Amino acid sequence: MSGAGGIVLDDARAGRIGFDEAILCEQKTVPQIAEIASRSRDTVGRRLFTRLSAEKFAALPPDLCGAMIYDAQSRTAVLGATAPGAGPPRVAIVSAGSSDANVVAEAQATLAYFGQSTQKIEDVGVAGIWRLLERVDEIASMPVVIAVAGMDAALPTVLAGLVPSFVIGVPTSTGYGAARGGETALSAMLASCGPGLTVVNIDNGYGAACAAMRFLRMADRVRQAEVPLFS
Amino acid sequence: MSGAGGIVLDDARAGRIGFDEAILCEQKTVPQIAEIASRSRDTVGRRLFTRLSAEKFAALPPDLCGAMIYDAQSRTAVLGATAPGAGPPRVAIVSAGSSDANVVAEAQATLAYFGQSTQKIEDVGVAGIWRLLERVDEIASMPVVIAVAGMDAALPTVLAGLVPSFVIGVPTSTGYGAARGGETALSAMLASCGPGLTVVNIDNGYGAACAAMRFLRMADRVRQAEVPLFS
Amino acid sequence: MSGAGGIVLDDARAGRIGFDEAILCEQKTVPQIAEIASRSRDTVGRRLFTRLSAEKFAALPPDLCGAMIYDAQSRTAVLGATAPGAGPPRVAIVSAGSSDANVVAEAQATLAYFGQSTQKIEDVGVAGIWRLLERVDEIASMPVVIAVAGMDAALPTVLAGLVPSFVIGVPTSTGYGAARGGETALSAMLASCGPGLTVVNIDNGYGAACAAMRFLRMADRVRQAEVPLFS
Amino acid sequence: MSGAGGIVLDDARAGRIGFDEAILCEQKTVPQIAEIASRSRDTVGRRLFTRLSAEKFAALPPDLCGAMIYDAQSRTAVLGATAPGAGPPRVAIVSAGSSDANVVAEAQATLAYFGQSTQKIEDVGVAGIWRLLERVDEIASMPVVIAVAGMDAALPTVLAGLVPSFVIGVPTSTGYGAARGGETALSAMLASCGPGLTVVNIDNGYGAACAAMRFLRMADRVRQAEVPLFS
Amino acid sequence: MSGAGGIVLDDARAGRIGFDEAILCEQKTVPQIAEIASRSRDTVGRRLFTRLSAEKFAALPPDLCGAMIYDAQSRTAVLGATAPGAGPPRVAIVSAGSSDANVVAEAQATLAYFGQSTQKIEDVGVAGIWRLLERVDEIASMPVVIAVAGMDAALPTVLAGLVPSFVIGVPTSTGYGAARGGETALSAMLASCGPGLTVVNIDNGYGAACAAMRFLRMADRVRQAEVPLFS
Amino acid sequence: MSGAGGIVLDDARAGRIGFDEAILCEQKTVPQIAEIASRSRDTVGRRLFTRLSAEKFAALPPDLCGAMIYDAQSRTAVLGATAPGAGPPRVAIVSAGSSDANVVAEAQATLAYFGQSTQKIEDVGVAGIWRLLERVDEIASMPVVIAVAGMDAALPTVLAGLVPSFVIGVPTSTGYGAARGGETALSAMLASCGPGLTVVNIDNGYGAACAAMRFLRMADRVRQAEVPLFS
Amino acid sequence: MSGAGGIVLDDARAGRIGFDEAILCEQKTVPQIAEIASRSRDTVGRRLFTRLSAEKFAALPPDLCGAMIYDAQSRTAVLGATAPGAGPPRVAIVSAGSSDANVVAEAQATLAYFGQSTQKIEDVGVAGIWRLLERVDEIASMPVVIAVAGMDAALPTVLAGLVPSFVIGVPTSTGYGAARGGETALSAMLASCGPGLTVVNIDNGYGAACAAMRFLRMADRVRQAEVPLFS
Amino acid sequence: MSGAGGIVLDDARAGRIGFDEAILCEQKTVPQIAEIASRSRDTVGRRLFTRLSAEKFAALPPDLCGAMIYDAQSRTAVLGATAPGAGPPRVAIVSAGSSDANVVAEAQATLAYFGQSTQKIEDVGVAGIWRLLERVDEIASMPVVIAVAGMDAALPTVLAGLVPSFVIGVPTSTGYGAARGGETALSAMLASCGPGLTVVNIDNGYGAACAAMRFLRMADRVRQAEVPLFS
Repeated sequence: MSGAGGIVLDDARAGRIGFDEAILCEQKTVPQIAEIASRSRDTVGRRLFTRLSAEKFAALPPDLCGAMIYDAQSRTAVLGATAPGAGPPRVAIVSAGSSDANVVAEAQATLAYFGQSTQKIEDVGVAGIWRLLERVDEIASMPVVIAVAGMDAALPTVLAGLVPSFVIGVPTSTGYGAARGGETALSAMLASCGPGLTVVNIDNGYGAACAAMRFLRMADRVRQAEVPLFS
Repeated sequence: MSGAGGIVLDDARAGRIGFDEAILCEQKTVPQIAEIASRSRDTVGRRLFTRLSAEKFAALPPDLCGAMIYDAQSRTAVLGATAPGAGPPRVAIVSAGSSDANVVAEAQATLAYFGQSTQKIEDVGVAGIWRLLERVDEIASMPVVIAVAGMDAALPTVLAGLVPSFVIGVPTSTGYGAARGGETALSAMLASCGPGLTVVNIDNGYGAACAAMRFLRMADRVRQAEVPLFS
Repeated sequence: MSGAGGIVLDDARAGRIGFDEAILCEQKTVPQIAEIASRSRDTVGRRLFTRLSAEKFAALPPDLCGAMIYDAQSRTAVLGATAPGAGPPRVAIVSAGSSDANVVAEAQATLAYFGQSTQKIEDVGVAGIWRLLERVDEIASMPVVIAVAGMDAALPTVLAGLVPSFVIGVPTSTGYGAARGGETALSAMLASCGPGLTVVNIDNGYGAACAAMRFLRMADRVRQAEVPLFS
Repeated sequence: MSGAGGIVLDDARAGRIGFDEAILCEQKTVPQIAEIASRSRDTVGRRLFTRLSAEKFAALPPDLCGAMIYDAQSRTAVLGATAPGAGPPRVAIVSAGSSDANVVAEAQATLAYFGQSTQKIEDVGVAGIWRLLERVDEIASMPVVIAVAGMDAALPTVLAGLVPSFVIGVPTSTGYGAARGGETALSAMLASCGPGLTVVNIDNGYGAACAAMRFLRMADRVRQAEVPLFS
Repeated sequence: MSGAGGIVLDDARAGRIGFDEAILCEQKTVPQIAEIASRSRDTVGRRLFTRLSAEKFAALPPDLCGAMIYDAQSRTAVLGATAPGAGPPRVAIVSAGSSDANVVAEAQATLAYFGQSTQKIEDVGVAGIWRLLERVDEIASMPVVIAVAGMDAALPTVLAGLVPSFVIGVPTSTGYGAARGGETALSAMLASCGPGLTVVNIDNGYGAACAAMRFLRMADRVRQAEVPLFS
Repeated sequence: MSGAGGIVLDDARAGRIGFDEAILCEQKTVPQIAEIASRSRDTVGRRLFTRLSAEKFAALPPDLCGAMIYDAQSRTAVLGATAPGAGPPRVAIVSAGSSDANVVAEAQATLAYFGQSTQKIEDVGVAGIWRLLERVDEIASMPVVIAVAGMDAALPTVLAGLVPSFVIGVPTSTGYGAARGGETALSAMLASCGPGLTVVNIDNGYGAACAAMRFLRMADRVRQAEVPLFS
Repeated sequence: MSGAGGIVLDDARAGRIGFDEAILCEQKTVPQIAEIASRSRDTVGRRLFTRLSAEKFAALPPDLCGAMIYDAQSRTAVLGATAPGAGPPRVAIVSAGSSDANVVAEAQATLAYFGQSTQKIEDVGVAGIWRLLERVDEIASMPVVIAVAGMDAALPTVLAGLVPSFVIGVPTSTGYGAARGGETALSAMLASCGPGLTVVNIDNGYGAACAAMRFLRMADRVRQAEVPLFS
Repeated sequence: MSGAGGIVLDDARAGRIGFDEAILCEQKTVPQIAEIASRSRDTVGRRLFTRLSAEKFAALPPDLCGAMIYDAQSRTAVLGATAPGAGPPRVAIVSAGSSDANVVAEAQATLAYFGQSTQKIEDVGVAGIWRLLERVDEIASMPVVIAVAGMDAALPTVLAGLVPSFVIGVPTSTGYGAARGGETALSAMLASCGPGLTVVNIDNGYGAACAAMRFLRMADRVRQAEVPLFS
């Protein structure tokens, strides 16, 4: 057992599923986060922390702060080196509005931590659909598309009908009133008539990035089966 | 008082707001509907009945049935003559899918009863956005657009960003699961980033048609102010 | 493409739908708002900002603050000149209570930005219905009525039965408990028996004003069809 | 203990609170209803049954059916004699539309069972507010008003502002979509700005009648205190 | 019209329904409250303000503060003299727990403003039912009972089965988790099997007091009909 | 693996947790149920089926029907012998009303299948609290109490304050309107101020019985620790 | 335009996104379905129909029925030949219980229509976790896993922590009470701590299959980038 | 009556149900808490306070603070001595993640106050199921298991299928978006397919501890019946 003090890190995770455990900090205390960071530094040497407020980060012991890089927009911190990325981006992160920027940043930071570069295409919501249409070819060239949208979240539906890419929708809490903190965006994506659109939790840029990671790793396996999929 | 037997028709309504009262039949009994039809026939001579099931219509006294025209798709019945229509249509009814056809029909039947012709443009949902884009000019030529959509209801948002028309969204109960009987479509329209989109109740083709009637009548009044609105 | 830094302004919007894009500031950062204001100043020369807190406005660079007029009640800021208004008001803004004043102000500020004067008729909720009844003729003389109400939102229903005007309901978050932050007012307006009542999002004074703008512009088009609508 | 076979009648209720227990039949089986009716016939001699479907009533043993009077509209059955009524009605039952007739009937039947006559004023919903205004004096003359309304349920709010009577609102399941089976009417009544409006469950005409019974009985007690309430 | 500056006081209310308008301050600004207080002082001479925070009260102009009496627990302020009360209390305010004390206080303060004394019976929730049982006779001696309870709100049901009084349930926001800010208490009271229990909005001590006022005034009218109600 | 045809019975369950798997039939097809019954007959020789409609039971192959005992009220069927019960009942099943009888029956049938006798105490809801108070000693003598109640579900709260027994609340779908199919009863039990009340799913008599089984088995283990718990 | 009679088939979809449009029949009329089937037969020659009840299928014109193969469990019909499949399955469909069989069947039928074979692993819910654990290697060998579960839907979380495959969760409407028709399963999957789990609508086996199709097609593209993803 | 100042302590509770009343401080004022502490000190001499913020504790009179022991993590304070514990722990508290630590602490502190020691097994959520599997024997050796989990709360289902212990699930508010402040965890536990799982309110560590207390006390009673339960 690798646990102590009420904390058990799932260090075998990378071996099982291909990427290591990140730490959701939102409801953790500063001592808990410090314990995890300290233990990670001494063992595996790296760790991603998400939903970490600037206040909590600043309250960590100085030596831990110094060993981590904090990014305010995505509210992530990285302990240790990020994985070395290689090649052109295979994941596009497309957003409906600039109010969705924090969620875009979390997805991007997570993929960067895992060594994947990304292509951001922001503020192309469908209320001015020309913005999206002039980027369609660019988006369609990416095997994975993370589509980030709040309010009525019409963007992923339109996208899913336009490109053959694997589309992962991330509803955001952008909006007010009937937007209901992202619930409407979430429901709209789930009820979408865009075929094959998949969805993650509200504001869950991290989860979308993890799904993209699964995609990229499994793509190899399919190919290795050595059968022509679509000729 | 014009009432009797627990029923009070608002016969002064047309004088106040410009069009007469229709009868929502869904939770009325056959005797109640018959009483209203009979009384209407004997006084104002005409009446629109909405959400009238075929079973209830068939259960009305034969003489009343004979005086009414029933339309199964829209579930409406018209007693007496419809108003004489004139000129080209000024209202477009645009729908996302053929599953929305009943609601489209209710809006169309209501406007027909009030003497207005309509232009139907159906099954142009945004999952295949080319279907909508090739009809944009046609839609934009109409001063009023009734946009009917269920599921994630992305259509009205895209429309509201493309055409200058007055857009009235009608969410429909099309879909299942997270579509929640039209609640998601309703919320999505309300939270839409399409500027100036207005909304009516789920499946309320009748209400959208009434709003269109208000629009058409008031258009005269604005013009009569004799001021250049936009030069 | 007019975008940069994750922001793409829809500058073609006015050409498509008749009025230019406003900026919803609620979930935008100060740098994002500053970037939009700066770019707008240098290109189209004007812009409306909504849901802008006094704190965020004060945090903008001084030269941008100086170029904008901020209104605390409506939480709007205007960059550049408002459109020159002409003629008497054609839009009434009617509210149920003085607690709805902020939403009334947002609708008024938006219409003012677009060059339209308005007639405010406040605090005429139906619990003291004489307050409304003595203003009915005044309201009925306006082609468009924006009806603002929270709690049980009975006002728009009563209004829709009294005046022939085009009525746009704006539910507000006024109230507590079962008012549920405006959800009850929203649902009540949607379920209203007032024929032809249309609805926008909770507290969405901006959206109601945009709908009014669509109405006023389209009124010309209907008239141009040169057909007698109702004789 | 007066119970047997899983049924325990609260025969002491009338002694405690002034009126006897009625039987809510909706989720009871026919044998259970029969057992209760039979036992009531043999002991107290009378009983009110509510929400009793015609099918269940018809399935009761003939001798019990014969001892009961069934009313299809209110879905009530009365075993034994109703209480002898005396004097003019002191309870008005006011409804917004004829679709609310079943709930009106349940309230009326319950009060009749308890020996109280009622004054029905139906179909006076506020979309045509003249219908209500011309009945205000009549309503205001009643100490207790049961206000029955579905959809947006604006009627009780207007009433509570117009009359000094004790107003008991009964939301009904009339309507569709955002009416949500009466939930919107219920919420609207609870969030009403009409001062001192009280509310019972959706479609609960029986409960409103019981509240009226409590009112009438307690009115005596207040008077007996022999103090001038309002001079 | 008595209105100005967006505020229209319903000064005819007392004449219509028997008690004057109170001011719900929660979503009003300090200038609005000051305007209402000032105008009330100069005309009718008295006014009740509810849901007024200590911060807002302190921010009023000194001369207005000096003319009002503020009570922190009930968050009410009274301008001018309260009505002179007479005789023993006829309204009991019963609460389930001491966490409900603020709502109890609001009901009490409102009734005091209207000249009615009350009998408080607090912290008698049914988890220790002996606390309630030993007060039943005292409660049953009151014609009106305001029953205040949060969490699962079992108290009003038990009460309604024990006493013949007119019971007005006030659900409170006491509790956490599944208590959902009072929604569960509200629903439980509405779904209660306690016959003739009526309900007002969550935390609405004011509304319950107004209902009690209606009761007390109407009690006279019933009696004046000079008929034996229950012999 | 004991599975075939898409069905995998968890036959090791009894060894792990002390009682064997029952089959929830509600969303299973007749062929699936027949396959499970047949396989169970041939292996372990007994099985409990819950939520099995009379229609589905009748549609099973005759030889399987003949090997099962069906009980319509509890909608259960038992294949093979029930466990031999011994000793007096240690579980009380207490219900608020006779409308809860089906859920009481499911709990009783499940415990009978597992060899446990039960004591039923029905129709003792708190609206007539004397019914409960006169049975308190009897209930308190049982180590486990299953408290079954719908509507506002006040019974378990009162019970949990009166008896030291382990109380398992089962909310039922009894009621209408704000009862919301048992959701209100469920929430009320969860938000109960009755200390140490535990809850299972709506109408889940089976689950309550399983919890009682866990209790009875574990009671031995505690005792075996041979320590004085409470002296 | 390929539309007529209110129906516009999106025949360009396969060219855009890689698979052709299926027809959701739930809210379509028999004539609409017949029109689509007839037109499809005459043009592209094949089509998948989902959520098609046996009653509607039987009501189609005989020549259309004869050209289609109907499967009752999945409620799908296939017009024309399915695509020729090749090679071993690359998609596992894992379900928690046999009550989920219909949704499993819809996913399987959809993938079969698109030429993909699947591996079904049913009834391995985590209440008896050995059932899942003994199949983990088999599941982990599949690049795509469709995880179908209702009630509390714990299966996908456990799976996502055990296998590196791309996991698509499909919540089902299995269960009752707090299962809320699949809403709880949906929410649980979205809130899952299983990293990178993606979700589709309740009971949406079709959507999960389309997502799997996107995956399989895009896998080629990633590989073509000719970069070592994970060494 | 032991009450005064609106507070009535249920000092007879321990005699009725076996453990004394704790004070839920969340919505109580500092004077109310002080009054309860003072009175408890002078009578029974001990008391547990839950959901007591550090701010409120610090605001108590110094002599009361000095007589209490405050624990920040569990937000509990103990007045007087805790009961003397004896023997090994019979209750395990198992949690899914370290974010659930506060709820674990509340359960532990409550049981400690009642003289029961506990065994904590934290951070064993099922996304890395090996963490749970290697502790199963340890957990299964405890007669009572309190299972604490947020988000999708899959842990209690897996546990209930693995161990024979009595399992009490405590959903926590851990998570965001679709976790909905613990509602999803709550619903998932209620809809669990784990047989015999019981549930308490969200974050209700206190309630789970009370249920454990009932279990431990009643265990004696079962044994005293001197019948072999399971041979």
